[in-house]
Order: sequence, then C-alpha cells, then structure tokens
Amino acid sequence: MLCGLEALGERRIIRLIWEYLDRMPDLALDLGDDVSAVNIGGGRVAVLKTDMLVGETDVPPSMSLRQAARKAVVMNISDFAAKGVKPLAMLVSLGLPRSLSEDDIRDIGAGLGDAAREYSTYIIGGDTNEASDLIISCSLLGFSSEGRIVSRSGAKPGDIVAVTGEFGKTSAGLKILLEGLSAPKEIAEKLKEAVFIPRARLSEGLALSEAGVLSASIDSSDGLAISLYELSDASNVGFIIDHVPIAKEAVRFADIHGLDPYDLGLYGGEEYELIVTVRPQLWEAAERAVADVGGTLIRIGRVIGEKRIELRTDGEIRKIERRGWEHFKIGKLCWHL
Amino acid sequence: MLCGLEALGERRIIRLIWEYLDRMPDLALDLGDDVSAVNIGGGRVAVLKTDMLVGETDVPPSMSLRQAARKAVVMNISDFAAKGVKPLAMLVSLGLPRSLSEDDIRDIGAGLGDAAREYSTYIIGGDTNEASDLIISCSLLGFSSEGRIVSRSGAKPGDIVAVTGEFGKTSAGLKILLEGLSAPKEIAEKLKEAVFIPRARLSEGLALSEAGVLSASIDSSDGLAISLYELSDASNVGFIIDHVPIAKEAVRFADIHGLDPYDLGLYGGEEYELIVTVRPQLWEAAERAVADVGGTLIRIGRVIGEKRIELRTDGEIRKIERRGWEHFKIGKLCWHL
Repeated sequence: MLCGLEALGERRIIRLIWEYLDRMPDLALDLGDDVSAVNIGGGRVAVLKTDMLVGETDVPPSMSLRQAARKAVVMNISDFAAKGVKPLAMLVSLGLPRSLSEDDIRDIGAGLGDAAREYSTYIIGGDTNEASDLIISCSLLGFSSEGRIVSRSGAKPGDIVAVTGEFGKTSAGLKILLEGLSAPKEIAEKLKEAVFIPRARLSEGLALSEAGVLSASIDSSDGLAISLYELSDASNVGFIIDHVPIAKEAVRFADIHGLDPYDLGLYGGEEYELIVTVRPQLWEAAERAVADVGGTLIRIGRVIGEKRIELRTDGEIRKIERRGWEHFKIGKLCWHL
Repeated sequence: MLCGLEALGERRIIRLIWEYLDRMPDLALDLGDDVSAVNIGGGRVAVLKTDMLVGETDVPPSMSLRQAARKAVVMNISDFAAKGVKPLAMLVSLGLPRSLSEDDIRDIGAGLGDAAREYSTYIIGGDTNEASDLIISCSLLGFSSEGRIVSRSGAKPGDIVAVTGEFGKTSAGLKILLEGLSAPKEIAEKLKEAVFIPRARLSEGLALSEAGVLSASIDSSDGLAISLYELSDASNVGFIIDHVPIAKEAVRFADIHGLDPYDLGLYGGEEYELIVTVRPQLWEAAERAVADVGGTLIRIGRVIGEKRIELRTDGEIRKIERRGWEHFKIGKLCWHL
C-alpha cells in the first residue's frame, strides 16, 4: 500500500500548497510553465527558476560530486533555454553531509564554476548548511521583455513539432548505472556520459527566441513523452509524432538487451533537449537559427487539434503513454504560479 | 577529533567554493554582505537572497511544520529588511520526507502563505522533491536603486549603534526546547514563542532606508555578538556597547537558572532584529522613522576607530567574544559574492 507522499502524488502535493498561496498580479507567464516571470515595469520581465538537486534521487552511483554540482546548474539552465531567456545570475543553496572532505567541497566548487562558465552566467551568492544528504538548490535570475518569453501554451494545429537532439542515451545509461545492465565499453562510456555530463540547449533556445520563430517550447527533462503531454495540456492540442530520433548507441543498447528503442527514447528523463513548435512558414528560419549556433533542429511530427498524442512509424499507429523514468526519481516536479 | 566539514569550518567551506567561481562584474554590493545585488541598467539594482531551512538543524522539537515553513521565509525576509529592500517575489524549493501526510503538506503550504502575506510578498514558483530530511529553500527577489542599498561597510567612528528590539528570548527558548530547562508557564510560553514565531523587522528596515539615515546595517540572525563582529569586519571599525537590551522574560529565566543574562542576549542567534549604525545628527530622524511604523530604535553604543568590541556596563569593561549559539545549528552561513 502506498502511504505518505507516494499516495498523494506530486501534482496533488503542489496543488495542496497552491491552495494556501495568493496569486501575484502582473505575472508574465501562466501557472505551470517552465519558469516564473513577473512584469517589473518599463516593458521588462524578471524571470526566475529554482530546481533542487537531491543526492539520493538525482545523483546516480559513480557520478562525481563535480558532475553533480554541474548538473544542478544545468537542470536550471535548461528551463531558461526552453523559454529563450539568458541566465544573468544565480544563487546556490547547499546542504552538505558532515562526512564531506575538503576535496569534496573543492569538487562541488569546481562543478559549479564549470557550469557557470559553460553557460556564461555567474554565481553571485548562496548559503551553506549541514544536511543529511547532498542538496544543491540553484535559483536563476534573468530578464526578458513583455510578450517575448516562449510559453508552453502557444502551439496551434498545423505547427511543426521539433527537438534539438536525439533521445535514449540517458535512459540506457541509467539502466547501466542503476540496474547493472552491460554494454560494450565504447557504447557504455557514451551512455554513461549522457547521464554524467548532461547539456542544456541554451544557445539553441536563445537563437530560436531571438529569431522569433517558436509558437511554444518546453524542455524534455521529465522525458519526451511526459513533456509532450505537458505541452499538449498547456496548448490544448495533440500531436502526431512520426519520427523519434534515437541515438545510435541507445538503439544498439536496446538491440543487445531486447528492449524497445522507442521505450528508451520516449519514456526516459534527465535529457535536456528542447521540444518546440513552429509555424510551417517559419520552419526554415528556425532550422537556420539553430544551425547558426552549431545545433540541429529535428522535425518529429505535427500539432493536431484533437488532444491525443500518437506515434506513427513503420505504418503502425501507437498511443504514446503519459509516463517517464520513475525507478530513479520519484516526487520531483517544478511549479510556477 | 573533528573530521569532515566540522574540521573545515563554515568560512573555509565558503572560501573553498569561491576559489572556483568567477566574479560577476557590475555587482552592487561587496562580497559577504547580507544579500547579493547586481546592477541591471537604468540605475536599477536586482537584489537576491537565498537561505535554506533544514529540518535537523533549523527546526527545534515541537515547532510545527506550519511554523517551520513560515520561519523559512522569515529567515530570508530579515536580510532584505537589513538592506532596506522590499521583497517583490519568492521561489520555494522543497525537500519532503516520504513519510509526510496530506495534512503535513497543508501545514507547509499554510506556513508559506502566512509569511508571504505577513510581509506583502508573493511566492511565484518552486519545486518539490523527495528528500530524507525536511528542506525549505527560499529565494527572494527585489529591486533597489544604485547607491541605495544599506551595506555592512559604511559604519564610521562616532556613529550611534542601535537595534530594533530586545534580545535573549530565543536563546532562553532554545534552552527550554533543546536542553529541557524549565520556567514558569507564562514565561516559558513567551520564550518558546520567540523561537516558533520569529519576526523579521521589514517595516523598520524599509522605513530606515526610506529615510536615508543609516550608515550600515546587518540582521542579527547569527546572534548579536557575531553580527557585531561581521559589521566590524566589513566597516573596519569597533564598537563600545554600553547597553544590551535584554527581554524581561530572558532576564527572569537567567535568574532562575543562575545564567548570565548577557550571555543570553549576546551569544544567541535565530533572532531577527536589525543592528544599524546612524550618524549622530540623523539619530532623531532614525528614531522617528522607526516609531512611525510602530517600532522602537534602541541605542546600544557607539562606533570607534579601533577594531575591538567592548561591553561597558555597570562600571565594568568586558570584551565581547566572537561566538554564538552552536549547540543547535552548525555549519550554516550565507555567502554573497
């Protein structure tokens, strides 16, 4: 029998808390988008995001502290990327187990520094606490203009659905790290690297926003399938997905273990690609904007008016299910009022 | 023998992390002040603060979850109060033990809502995670103007040192809660209430900043003595303290247990009064500004050029030591680059 938080479920927890909070007037984004945004006058919008890394649920075995600290930043940057907002500065709140050594602290510092430089932002403060598990809670601040932030809610029937990269490596990597599945060395290294050194698509997100070509956007950190459902709910549309770009290492891994590669690609998580929708007449401009920053925009399907999400490949039609990776991470969800 | 984090010490941990972080240009406050502040153009300054509440170290026995959640907000508001900055909006990152019930979640929501209303701010987002201990990490955003934020570094010899309230109740309350010391019921209730329902001096801080009467300011959350030392370090001055306002309940408690009331007043913590310095010619205006919002500004001493902190009372001169409450809370320190 489920009890406590498990029985409640993440969404219910957030709704319960929401009940007690007053809504701020002048918010610039709807409840439940990737970030919080508030109008601050003069057409400017302040954008905020917080996401907490918890050792037990977010740091798989053999991930280094340096990688964990870097990941804590990437998790936050990815949401700014999806909204096309440049991260200006960041705070980091640390919970540190008493057993950590000086070298451990240095590793955490190095990982935070790595990530800040990688995404051209600065950590300008934080706080340090003793805690029973490793906690790295980042808060990002950025600025945008009124009407400029790409929401989750603007997708329209006929739009093209696209992603910024391939899927499946992280799911496969986590199966190696958490379930002990094996793979040839060179493949295993790549799959584990996807878990240890995730990359946020900030350049792509900023370029797409700059070009003004997106109707909606979300990051895929909860998994491709779940994120499509979130986008579907926010925009009140559905999707026909006719292509799921799965990394060749993930396909190979699926082949070795008799797994469905679509399962790895759709129902993973901890992958920080962007999922965007684009009006057909803006598609070429969108492709070009991403290519100009060294990325690739991959068409995966189209938006439909009916609220269902279907996978149509190899002449077969399947329903994409609303589920993601749950063995590793339970009870994690961001909320924005 | 100390090992791990204890051997390192809080300040060293923060310095180690700093080594790996690049300094942001355009910061509006020095490293090590109560908040982080960055110039955002047009004479405006964005102000940020994060402080994490950890169950094990910040929530004493018999404090309710509602009180704990409220306290997590107050901890952050108090630093904005010290800098004279109005908190515009807040994010809350939660780590929740799996054993919590629906009522527990409601209590946390209610406590967050209580605090946001009390200080006229809004919680506009957050994230929810499973964690082994209760974690409530708040991040505050506010705005100020260039040159307007009251720093820790502007105290000058001859300035008056003052505080916004009395000290000692929290120390006494924690001795009841953590060490099992007793007190007559009506006193015990008041002492415990100081721990359970701390109040940030936001109205006072905003009024003093508005009146433009402060040369320096800090909050006393690390204890009166430690906070005086922080102010002394930042301003490169010393203090002669000739009056420590100690709450009558704390004096009575000290009397019952044969404790030195000055110990309760100076070496406590978790008290959210403001400690400010004021040029003598602005003293009356400062007193009036605080009185106008229903508070009291209490003169406790004066700033001297020599870097020492002395207590002169009852014809006796004593050195105030650099120490605070450490049985309950270890390894907690905010840092601002």
